[in-house]
Amino acid sequence: MTETFNALFSPGSVAIIGASDNPNKVGGRPIHYMRKFGYAGEVFPVNPGRTTIQGYRAYPTLGDIGKTPDAVVIAVSGDATMEQVRACADAGVKAAVIMASGFAETGQEGRTRQQEMVDVARAGGMRLVGPNAQGTANFAKGAVLNFSTMFMEVAPADGPIAIISQSGAASVMPYALLRQAGLGVRYLVATGNDADLDACAMTAAVAEDPAIKLILLYLESVSDPAALARAAAIARSRGASIVAIKAGRSQHGARAAASHTGALVGNDAAIDAFFARIGIWRAADIGELVRAVPLYLQGRAPGQGRTVVMSHSGAVGVMAADLAERHDLSLTELESATLESLGAILPDFGTASNPLDMTAALMGKGDMFPRVLDALGGDPQADMVMIGIPVAGPGYDVEALARDAAASSSRFGKPLVVSAPQQAVRDVFVQHGVPTFVTEGDAIAALAQYAAHARLEASAQTPEFSNNPLSLEGSGLQDEARSLALLAQAGVPAVPNRICATADEAVAAFSALGCGSVVVKGCAAEVPHKSEHGLVHLRLADPTAVEQAARDCLHKLRELGVQSPRVVVAAMVAGRHEFALGVSVDPVLGPLVMIGEGGTLLELRKDIVSLLAPFSQADVRAACGRLRIAPLFQGYRDMPALDLDALAAAAVALGDWAVQHRETLKSVDINPLMVQAAGEGVVAVDAVVELAGA
Amino acid sequence: MTETFNALFSPGSVAIIGASDNPNKVGGRPIHYMRKFGYAGEVFPVNPGRTTIQGYRAYPTLGDIGKTPDAVVIAVSGDATMEQVRACADAGVKAAVIMASGFAETGQEGRTRQQEMVDVARAGGMRLVGPNAQGTANFAKGAVLNFSTMFMEVAPADGPIAIISQSGAASVMPYALLRQAGLGVRYLVATGNDADLDACAMTAAVAEDPAIKLILLYLESVSDPAALARAAAIARSRGASIVAIKAGRSQHGARAAASHTGALVGNDAAIDAFFARIGIWRAADIGELVRAVPLYLQGRAPGQGRTVVMSHSGAVGVMAADLAERHDLSLTELESATLESLGAILPDFGTASNPLDMTAALMGKGDMFPRVLDALGGDPQADMVMIGIPVAGPGYDVEALARDAAASSSRFGKPLVVSAPQQAVRDVFVQHGVPTFVTEGDAIAALAQYAAHARLEASAQTPEFSNNPLSLEGSGLQDEARSLALLAQAGVPAVPNRICATADEAVAAFSALGCGSVVVKGCAAEVPHKSEHGLVHLRLADPTAVEQAARDCLHKLRELGVQSPRVVVAAMVAGRHEFALGVSVDPVLGPLVMIGEGGTLLELRKDIVSLLAPFSQADVRAACGRLRIAPLFQGYRDMPALDLDALAAAAVALGDWAVQHRETLKSVDINPLMVQAAGEGVVAVDAVVELAGA
Repeated sequence: MTETFNALFSPGSVAIIGASDNPNKVGGRPIHYMRKFGYAGEVFPVNPGRTTIQGYRAYPTLGDIGKTPDAVVIAVSGDATMEQVRACADAGVKAAVIMASGFAETGQEGRTRQQEMVDVARAGGMRLVGPNAQGTANFAKGAVLNFSTMFMEVAPADGPIAIISQSGAASVMPYALLRQAGLGVRYLVATGNDADLDACAMTAAVAEDPAIKLILLYLESVSDPAALARAAAIARSRGASIVAIKAGRSQHGARAAASHTGALVGNDAAIDAFFARIGIWRAADIGELVRAVPLYLQGRAPGQGRTVVMSHSGAVGVMAADLAERHDLSLTELESATLESLGAILPDFGTASNPLDMTAALMGKGDMFPRVLDALGGDPQADMVMIGIPVAGPGYDVEALARDAAASSSRFGKPLVVSAPQQAVRDVFVQHGVPTFVTEGDAIAALAQYAAHARLEASAQTPEFSNNPLSLEGSGLQDEARSLALLAQAGVPAVPNRICATADEAVAAFSALGCGSVVVKGCAAEVPHKSEHGLVHLRLADPTAVEQAARDCLHKLRELGVQSPRVVVAAMVAGRHEFALGVSVDPVLGPLVMIGEGGTLLELRKDIVSLLAPFSQADVRAACGRLRIAPLFQGYRDMPALDLDALAAAAVALGDWAVQHRETLKSVDINPLMVQAAGEGVVAVDAVVELAGA
Repeated sequence: MTETFNALFSPGSVAIIGASDNPNKVGGRPIHYMRKFGYAGEVFPVNPGRTTIQGYRAYPTLGDIGKTPDAVVIAVSGDATMEQVRACADAGVKAAVIMASGFAETGQEGRTRQQEMVDVARAGGMRLVGPNAQGTANFAKGAVLNFSTMFMEVAPADGPIAIISQSGAASVMPYALLRQAGLGVRYLVATGNDADLDACAMTAAVAEDPAIKLILLYLESVSDPAALARAAAIARSRGASIVAIKAGRSQHGARAAASHTGALVGNDAAIDAFFARIGIWRAADIGELVRAVPLYLQGRAPGQGRTVVMSHSGAVGVMAADLAERHDLSLTELESATLESLGAILPDFGTASNPLDMTAALMGKGDMFPRVLDALGGDPQADMVMIGIPVAGPGYDVEALARDAAASSSRFGKPLVVSAPQQAVRDVFVQHGVPTFVTEGDAIAALAQYAAHARLEASAQTPEFSNNPLSLEGSGLQDEARSLALLAQAGVPAVPNRICATADEAVAAFSALGCGSVVVKGCAAEVPHKSEHGLVHLRLADPTAVEQAARDCLHKLRELGVQSPRVVVAAMVAGRHEFALGVSVDPVLGPLVMIGEGGTLLELRKDIVSLLAPFSQADVRAACGRLRIAPLFQGYRDMPALDLDALAAAAVALGDWAVQHRETLKSVDINPLMVQAAGEGVVAVDAVVELAGA
């Protein structure tokens, strides 16, 4: 870790400005916690009104301490904060936690004061956490620069988990759930307004700690995607994982997020694509955030995720199979040798297929259970094991079951989980280190997430954020001719076309294009929805028809108030299927490219995938495989296979071009993009490019 | 309840045949449980080898007891069961629980023995539970004719819940979760093989108990839909609810179906439709089965489900809003008067919209919190309240919060739930009777289910299963001409067409049809996929083209081995949009009608809804509103509104016809069904009807 993060997480000394003798005040609680949780460094309460605070000597001002503390907690009110930040920066403090609220979250004036505060700190070489931050904690050192009430109620313990959150509440909720489950948490950081050291930077910092196996994130905005990508890369390089909530998905959520942190909530699909690219699993809520934690901590490789379900109840097997399908977890086909072994071990072997119904062996008596586990452990088709124990009591040796299950998982290195509704049964398995769940639903969901996340991590990349964008001339919506020209420049095949100001020019264009049949369309940036105004004339095969159509369009455009009406004359292109290709440039994450079924019903059918640019043709092929109409690429019924290669090439070209021009490009809509049979290419038939500004 | 169910659930006396002195044997456990759980009737252990068993006098045979017990548990092995069933039936026993396995679940021979056993019982006027049953329990009476291990570990307590399950394991899993949460369960029934008194009949029986507010079901098959519909009607009439797992979703999905409709909807969709119709909520797993139980038990009306979320954390509000969108729960727009009141109560009112960010009030001090609850309680736009308490500790008066929350919910009669990760916080709310959840995710999911289930119950119907079906002549796949004729008979408008055996007949048909343009298609039941064999010739406008097309089709059909090749000559019909309409007849639940976007990509786009027949046009309109392409019915972009009335009329006619002919009809595929602009109707252009047999 850098000096800054060392100062925060392993400080030799901490001053608390605005210190209180009352451990239930914001300025009292960090002092209370540091004493209580074994902080071994020096603690300097700063308060002009007292000589001792909670048993520590107190100082009137920072200057009176006589040395410069590594880190400072500034727990005075918002108005008084700036003066203290200046004093700290002047004194050479490396990092400060600002707890006061009343900054960017209150509006423009607060934003300005917040930026001034950051500037003052940076000028003195000091870094800030907050403002409006609950603060940082490293429970390995008892360094608790954090005022959350939670540690009063749920005692900390060190462990291989870090929790980084922009929200105080969202930092302590997973903490409470993990601690109540007996799991240790090392870092707990709530960054508040993210004015300087933000949640992304914090994530990168804790990712470097070799003891950390799992980082849990709560974000309402991704303020620094490059830092988060770097954090993810560091974590991956060490075999550590990141699971994150990015809240504000819904409209309601987005609205509340804006008013809460003053942060901009980015396009949600861009977040999905970004997290997937850098190998972060996106959780829907706090429950999903913590659900699979025991699997991550154990760290056994999930292989291809092919799972064996076994139970002494057929019903558990049936439900687990339903749930596996719902969560896209594959139940494995066991090798026939394994099934034979199982048949030999279990005299009244219930069901000779997965899910395994194995009545007697799950009582834990004799050596049936370990022998079954050996058989499964040795089957290369079986990557993970779920054992459902719906009931146990007299007649069951749960201790033996737990011991054997733990031993098998350890010996074969395969993830193994247990689901059991009885707390007493789960307790025994937990004591043996076996991940346990209350229901089959949770167990299957956790296994599915763990396996899918491993696949995500294996294909993760670290995107570049450093190139210098090029500019595009113009602003706002571009007319069809310019749009098609820009796309052609980008490398997306566009339909041959001519822009014409008169009907005579249109007739000339018809013969110049030299194709049998053309389309004539009104062309004006002000009128993007041409067909709704009768501005599209299809299949014109002779000069008279072209002339009439051009006149009609020019007349209608004039009536719509267009000053310099023009028409586009373009070759008629029939395609095997209509696709759509588009770009939406996220201000933070860059261009998101959308690929999907096109046509007029695009927005109803919503059969689309999206990719954060830049990406490869292989990425496009994988994404297109998730479309409902994906079978068209292999040839469907009597239709030939479509040209996925050309589609992928066009999407990659569009994405690269959008990255290059991301500062001035806002969006691209190509619909339809005609996709032909394999080897015959794609053609953009209609397009609107939107540039920034105006 | 009937005499039979009284005998099982409130017996004056119970004999246990195969009684054991060992409380951990199948024949010992019911005796142990009845003594332990306060059964006040007589217990007669039957065992020729002992004089006393677990303190009760034992009898060598049933006949030695000297009176006829109301109910008997038969706990001898499978081979010895028949003899005991006969003895019980002869003695006039009203009901017996058969615990032995080795019957229908083992194959055909076992099925035969099982039926013999039922016949013997019925002949003597006795009813059976099982075989292969864990048995019945009424914990209000201590009448435990059940051998589950679970009651050794998790003690029972009476309560307003019944659990009915075909599986023993699936009966005790929800039991364990509910009892560990402090909730009482009155009935617990595991019916095993369902040979006589099945899970549906049991459900109807317990639904009649006025103390039962909620019935939890686990089914792997719906053996008696009429009984289940009756049970649901009884429950609804009393304001009780039913939540059910129907397991085996994935198996059904996997089974291959001959018809497109059958493959698309699967048999599982029939279960969904059936449960929805009779007002049963279908849960995905045991977790969902029990999740919303506290809301059902409290029984407060969810109104329109418009929910207020409040928290002292903005993050909780943001997450709850995301989750509400995911679960289709609407967050209400509060009345402006309410927002004004809130602003007056809360000086630093965080966010003046829902979700409410209300920092200070959620500490529970002063009267802010009850005043906020009063303001919400009085707002007619607010139907339900969720309070998120991510953290509490010193400075919080959780007791006051819980008291006020409970009082408000009771006073206004509105459902109110709390989510809190801290066990200690939840405990306080539970003590005050407030439904609590660990995460916002569970709280929102429970509220969403509770509100949606109430809507389902309000529109529930009790289907008729009693009419006498009519027969259709023929078997297997019908050719297009017969199929269209059958549909026309059903009341579905079909395209004008003629069936022709020669090219000359085709030409004659062309002029007879008198339309400008026709389609000529090969017609043979053996070749349902015409377009794949080049057997469809479109837009033929002159006799020569018709003749050529007919010759081509006849030739190709002959080459495909069709003995008597024919062609259909049909009017070309252009439609505004291609739909598909289909039927798949479920052997138990009857015809399921599928409606969706048609065309060659039907099975890829899967934009379909399904309804169990019979149904009304209003049902069709509601279902079609769930299609992705639903906006087409209102007019989309430059397209006129489509004829939803005609589509609904065709679907209702098809459904009614399918119900009438359900014994001989297997499936119907109509694709495309051309839907015209409103007022212009629908036309079936291509269809395949599949009849039973051959």
